[in-house]
Amino acid sequence: MSSAGLVPAVLREYGDRARVALCDYLGPREPKRHLYTLVADYPWRSGRMLRPALCIATARAFGAKLEEALASAVALELLHNAFLVHDDVEDESEERRGRPTLHALHGAAVAINVGDALLLLGLRALLDNQRVIGARLTLRVLEEAERMARETVEGQAIELGWRRDNAVHVSESEYLEVILKKTCWYSTIFPIRVGALIGTRSDAELDRFIRFGFFLGAAFQIQDDRLNLIGDHERYGKELGGDLQEGKRTVMLIRALSVASDDERVRLVDMLAAPRSARGAAELRWMRDLVSRYGCLEHARDVAHALAGAAAHEFATVFADVPDSRDKRFIEQLVRWVLERN
Amino acid sequence: MSSAGLVPAVLREYGDRARVALCDYLGPREPKRHLYTLVADYPWRSGRMLRPALCIATARAFGAKLEEALASAVALELLHNAFLVHDDVEDESEERRGRPTLHALHGAAVAINVGDALLLLGLRALLDNQRVIGARLTLRVLEEAERMARETVEGQAIELGWRRDNAVHVSESEYLEVILKKTCWYSTIFPIRVGALIGTRSDAELDRFIRFGFFLGAAFQIQDDRLNLIGDHERYGKELGGDLQEGKRTVMLIRALSVASDDERVRLVDMLAAPRSARGAAELRWMRDLVSRYGCLEHARDVAHALAGAAAHEFATVFADVPDSRDKRFIEQLVRWVLERN
Repeated sequence: MSSAGLVPAVLREYGDRARVALCDYLGPREPKRHLYTLVADYPWRSGRMLRPALCIATARAFGAKLEEALASAVALELLHNAFLVHDDVEDESEERRGRPTLHALHGAAVAINVGDALLLLGLRALLDNQRVIGARLTLRVLEEAERMARETVEGQAIELGWRRDNAVHVSESEYLEVILKKTCWYSTIFPIRVGALIGTRSDAELDRFIRFGFFLGAAFQIQDDRLNLIGDHERYGKELGGDLQEGKRTVMLIRALSVASDDERVRLVDMLAAPRSARGAAELRWMRDLVSRYGCLEHARDVAHALAGAAAHEFATVFADVPDSRDKRFIEQLVRWVLERN
Repeated sequence: MSSAGLVPAVLREYGDRARVALCDYLGPREPKRHLYTLVADYPWRSGRMLRPALCIATARAFGAKLEEALASAVALELLHNAFLVHDDVEDESEERRGRPTLHALHGAAVAINVGDALLLLGLRALLDNQRVIGARLTLRVLEEAERMARETVEGQAIELGWRRDNAVHVSESEYLEVILKKTCWYSTIFPIRVGALIGTRSDAELDRFIRFGFFLGAAFQIQDDRLNLIGDHERYGKELGGDLQEGKRTVMLIRALSVASDDERVRLVDMLAAPRSARGAAELRWMRDLVSRYGCLEHARDVAHALAGAAAHEFATVFADVPDSRDKRFIEQLVRWVLERN
């Protein structure tokens, strides 16, 4: 299969398997109206199932059967959606995957509780590993999940702190550290580590996957941030420019803060210091124009490409001993796919 | 030791052990300012450590060493505090243990994330069980924790639904079902089940503790609701009448709704339908007066006493085969203590 077609094909195939397995956790039960109906909302909005697919593909590349990675893949998707629900409340986001956010529909109180329920369903799926991969590996996957969730929460704390303090001296490397924690750990590093753990039945060398996961995940996140500004609303599924509205520190905003004129910088800092609601259409237009004018989008594209290059190099090293397979090629081709998707 | 002194003495002794063990999870580390300093806030406000003490006492009554129950006891305290942080945001509570709630101090976004971090620290403590009680029991305790947290989240969902719908036909038995889920599971049933699990190294008959835990926990909760209306603010540590302000369905409020005159009932329902901020001092005074006038506090006291009587009876059955010990007597005397504390 051509390189262009392999990634979508594997995403579709493993995504479908993960969706079927998800049904075991998202079936209707009481209390429905204020809990389990809402718990199923985000997971059934059309996610790409990138994370479960990466977990399954890595496990298979290392010799496991798909079924051995399925509960972990499903757990990951449930935890991912739990983070999304809580992040959306914390960031006051308005849209998620083309529809109003859960708290916009049902209030923050109900949404926080739904996020907690999704976390617990993730734990439920991780415990269900016992039936398939045994007690020892189940506990090792739980250790991985605990580490991953801790990194995510710490990354979110640092980012919330930046917005609370209206931090204007955030460097690109500080940004990348946050991305490592709050995007890469759960989007790439955890799926790959857990896949390798299940595939090799050993945790001897899991740390070697951190660099590859970081490069791949960071390229993915920066591309995501770019799409937030320039993307097609219908495909992107969040409000365009939502990051600017939230005052989210992205590579583009950090670049703008560092290269703008003194006057522009003062104005930008004032806008970021104001409450979210004070950033109206005129302010957003001005911010977007500033970001364009100083080539911040191109700069972000360059950073994403450099990270993807590093990921490709790292892949060649850490997967060198893994025999060729469709799953291995899928992982390799993800590197280009994260830049090309729109 | 006299019956009056045993409960406080055991709470102090096991509470101190749990507090020392908690330090392993609440030490200072980065990111401090927006996360780990705040994570430690609620746990160090002077809680009674009732739940960890009950878990340790049950484990010892069934023959375990204190050290074997310590990580589970600490996990329980961390999870308890996680629930408190999220509940306080969801209920818009203003005070907790005599100080402003976490979200009142740092905003809802940071508080939600801090609650997530406390949940994860609870998971960390549960995983640390591996070193002391082995893989099999560690996984069994995790199963118990997953069940307990699920019951808690479901109970919270039902209660949030009542307030959202301004439900005025809640019956006392529906109230007790919610209390079973959102108070008893984590306050009494889980500590006892996990203590028995660790003490007996068997999960053959854990379900027999549900009734005792329910009677004890429900008596505890109803007494807590009474103290919210009539207690000493300094000792109680929450804003007095906060439950009325929140419109929380308690035995007293449910009683008032069922026995008040038609006019009073219409007025009460209107007040409960209004947003929280519309219930000012005059409204609270009127509601409190109504509750007093119809003897709802005495009714709640009667219900709590009946539940405590049922708990004492159930204790005699399910602990019949357990040899006499200070720990067993502590559990027995908790039944009276929950009614007498103020």
